[in-house]
Amino acid sequence: MKYPPHLIALIDFFKKLPGVGQKSAERFAFSVLDWSKEQLLAFGKTLEMTRDSITYCPICAAMSSKNSCIYCSDSKRSKSQICIVAYPKDIFAIEETHAYNGLYHVLKGLLSPITGMNSERLNLVSLKERVQTGEFTEMILAFDSTVEGDATTLYLKREFLNPKIKISKLAFGMPVGSSLEYVDGNTLGRAFAGRHGF
Amino acid sequence: MKYPPHLIALIDFFKKLPGVGQKSAERFAFSVLDWSKEQLLAFGKTLEMTRDSITYCPICAAMSSKNSCIYCSDSKRSKSQICIVAYPKDIFAIEETHAYNGLYHVLKGLLSPITGMNSERLNLVSLKERVQTGEFTEMILAFDSTVEGDATTLYLKREFLNPKIKISKLAFGMPVGSSLEYVDGNTLGRAFAGRHGF
Repeated sequence: MKYPPHLIALIDFFKKLPGVGQKSAERFAFSVLDWSKEQLLAFGKTLEMTRDSITYCPICAAMSSKNSCIYCSDSKRSKSQICIVAYPKDIFAIEETHAYNGLYHVLKGLLSPITGMNSERLNLVSLKERVQTGEFTEMILAFDSTVEGDATTLYLKREFLNPKIKISKLAFGMPVGSSLEYVDGNTLGRAFAGRHGF
Repeated sequence: MKYPPHLIALIDFFKKLPGVGQKSAERFAFSVLDWSKEQLLAFGKTLEMTRDSITYCPICAAMSSKNSCIYCSDSKRSKSQICIVAYPKDIFAIEETHAYNGLYHVLKGLLSPITGMNSERLNLVSLKERVQTGEFTEMILAFDSTVEGDATTLYLKREFLNPKIKISKLAFGMPVGSSLEYVDGNTLGRAFAGRHGF
C-alpha cells in the first residue's frame, strides 16, 4: 500500500529523529494531520528558525540565545573551576543538578578514530588559551562513560598536566535508586573499586 | 536551567506528538539542531504542506492525494463488499494485509459518549445512501478492539439490519507469533470461545 507522496515525505523526516522507526514515524505523521493549520505553520517556522536563532559563546562554545554567554558573563560563578563537556547540551544536564557553579568549555566532540574525530577537530586551541590566561585550580572532565569519553579523558589529562591545576573526572558507581540485582557488572565493579569510608 | 526560547518552543512542539515526553522531545530537538539548514527548511515546508495536500474521497472519505479515490475508482475491486473503518489511516493497515479487495467507508470516528461522539457526528448519511443504492452483499466492521469499537459495531449491526447484507466483524483470538503464557486473559478467553474445527 502506498501513502500519498507528501505523507511519505513527512514520515521520512520523522524517521530521521533518534530512536524513531517506521511505525512511530507513521504514528507521528498521522497525528500531525489532526493539528490545526496554525499549529503546523508554527511548528514548521520554529523548525526553520531554531537553528539560526541559537548562537554559541565565542569563549566556551556553550549554547546561548543572545551574544553574551550566561555562564562566562555571570560574575557569581566561580572563576577557579572549569568543566569540560563534549556537547553544548551536556551543560544543561549539569546545570540541572545545581552541583556545580564554575565555568564551562565545550569540546564539540569526543576523540573517536573510527569516525575520524581526532584532537585537531576538538575545540582545544581556545581551551589552552583559557587555561594559560585564566586562574583555574580545577579542571573537571565530564564526558559520557564510553570508550570515546574515556579516551578523551586520558588525552586531556596528559595534555593539560600542570601542578597548579587539579584534573578530576566524574565518579562512577551505582545510579541512585538502583538495586544491586539490576546494576550491570561493569558498573558494580567500578562501584566496588570506588568504595570509600563514611 | 533554561533552554533558549526557540529551543523550548521546539521541544514543546515535539511533546505534542503521541507518546513523546519531555526527555524524548529534548532529544529530538537537539538532534534537529544538527541537521542542515536545507533539511530543516524542507521538514518545515513538508509539515506545512502535508495537511493541505491531502484530500478525502467525497464518497468513502478515504485519504487520497488526487481528486479520484484509488479505491472507489478501481474497477478491479469487488463492488459487493464494503469495509467500514473508523479513520482513514485504518485503510492502509488493511491494505497491507492483501486480505481484502472490496470498497471502504470511513466513519471519521467511533461512538464515545464521554467525548461527545454520537451517531450524528459519524459519517453515516452517505453510508446509508451507498448501502441503499449499491449492491453490497457483505459489510465488514473493522474497528479497534475497544469499548468504543464494540459500541459502534453493535450500533451499526442494528442500524443496517438487512436480510440481503451479511454484517461481519473481525475475528478475535491469539495474535500470530504470540505464546499462551504472555497473551492476556481476555484475548485468550475470546480465542477459546472462537475455537473451530480444522
